[in-house]
Amino acid sequence: MEDLKVFKIGGKVVDDPDSLRAFVKDFAAVKCKKILVHGGGKSVTEMSQRLGIEVKMIQGRRITDGPTLEVVKMMLAGVANKNVVSLLQANGVNAIGMTGADGDAILANRRPVKNGIDYGYVGDVERVSAHTISKLINLNLVPVFAAMTHDGQGQLFNTNADTIASSLAVGLSVYFAVELIYCFELNGVLRSIEDPQSVIQLINSNIYTALKEDKTINEGMIPKIDNAFDALNAGVRAVRIGSAARIGDLTREDMNFGTKIVL
Amino acid sequence: MEDLKVFKIGGKVVDDPDSLRAFVKDFAAVKCKKILVHGGGKSVTEMSQRLGIEVKMIQGRRITDGPTLEVVKMMLAGVANKNVVSLLQANGVNAIGMTGADGDAILANRRPVKNGIDYGYVGDVERVSAHTISKLINLNLVPVFAAMTHDGQGQLFNTNADTIASSLAVGLSVYFAVELIYCFELNGVLRSIEDPQSVIQLINSNIYTALKEDKTINEGMIPKIDNAFDALNAGVRAVRIGSAARIGDLTREDMNFGTKIVL
Repeated sequence: MEDLKVFKIGGKVVDDPDSLRAFVKDFAAVKCKKILVHGGGKSVTEMSQRLGIEVKMIQGRRITDGPTLEVVKMMLAGVANKNVVSLLQANGVNAIGMTGADGDAILANRRPVKNGIDYGYVGDVERVSAHTISKLINLNLVPVFAAMTHDGQGQLFNTNADTIASSLAVGLSVYFAVELIYCFELNGVLRSIEDPQSVIQLINSNIYTALKEDKTINEGMIPKIDNAFDALNAGVRAVRIGSAARIGDLTREDMNFGTKIVL
Repeated sequence: MEDLKVFKIGGKVVDDPDSLRAFVKDFAAVKCKKILVHGGGKSVTEMSQRLGIEVKMIQGRRITDGPTLEVVKMMLAGVANKNVVSLLQANGVNAIGMTGADGDAILANRRPVKNGIDYGYVGDVERVSAHTISKLINLNLVPVFAAMTHDGQGQLFNTNADTIASSLAVGLSVYFAVELIYCFELNGVLRSIEDPQSVIQLINSNIYTALKEDKTINEGMIPKIDNAFDALNAGVRAVRIGSAARIGDLTREDMNFGTKIVL
């Protein structure tokens, strides 16, 4: 099977022009089939405030009421996605911007109210149209996903970008040897949050259990690593977590970039 | 060659939920390969005003300064495009939303300053990547274009939706037998603007010259018909102008829908 790398970048990369430009240059240099998934939460928050829409977050997740969903469409599917796509084009990458509605790529269910929390128009992924996406990739297009899904009934949803990246990675592992790469502001999963060089180079199931027990891994990282293990269990070959500023190193097979997660 | 119909709808259809729903249902029923191009100027104007950005128009064309371009990305590539795509999906059409940057579909040059008028980030179409778009169509995807282009150097442009529709129709006439269909609020090109039934059923070059000379055709219609003739001269089989509310009739070959334009 041919290699496919699924990259996820967060709002801190997308919403900062300099970071985005640096990332895109490195991403363009990655010489294999690839997908990019991006968030853009900061711009959603800023535009919501500018429009007088209350920003509500629970445990880092956005409550997406009707007006907020419109802002997500505006800033994620509109501004962020098109900025990334046009910048990639300028760097020789034939990017095609998508949401889960485009090509029916990612179908989702609205998250049910649980423990009294209604997340609003937030979707939990039901299935990925891996066949259609693989066809696009085989046309040498590079799908660039804004973190949105749809229900097939005309409703769009805000969906966690990490989850979208892992869902795509899993779905496409039928057609490709997939590596899933979470890019963020740190160098990897850190042993000590104060020391940016304290990267844990390898995590497997046993190491993960131990790291959680002694509370080395902070809470914000746990859903990311849980997603990674779900993806590995479902067919993804490898998951890496590392700095968006250093993805150039990814093109070198001999480099240890960030944290590698295996079963 | 296989038939391809390129439809263009304006902001008045896209920005009104009821009109859009009715249009999408009819569009879904059209049984051949197809493309949809949409505007959405009303929502751009409204959001600009809400954000305190001055709206400047010259002869019906928007002056697109930097802040306005961001609003175009938000409302056209974001809200309008994703609403249309998700609604089409709900009606069984495997739509894929695009701008000219996606798949490098439509390359444009920034419109030069002329007679002291600087339109800002407005692009004039340079070329269409008909090959890539034809590949998407042959995957049974239905491209849905927001009226934006790019320069290949990372800059997006606002571009007239009529022009995008005709550029796509011309470019794709290499691969398909293309009919270009402009849908708007009237029943066609009218002999008298007061009488909605006074549709001119057929316009050819001679009739057009006469209609312009006796001022039967109003100014707003002239660029539309000029575009139509350009498209016909460049390989498009037929151009129709008719009501967005009546595109159901288009599926019946024996119906005279709106105004048909031929060389």
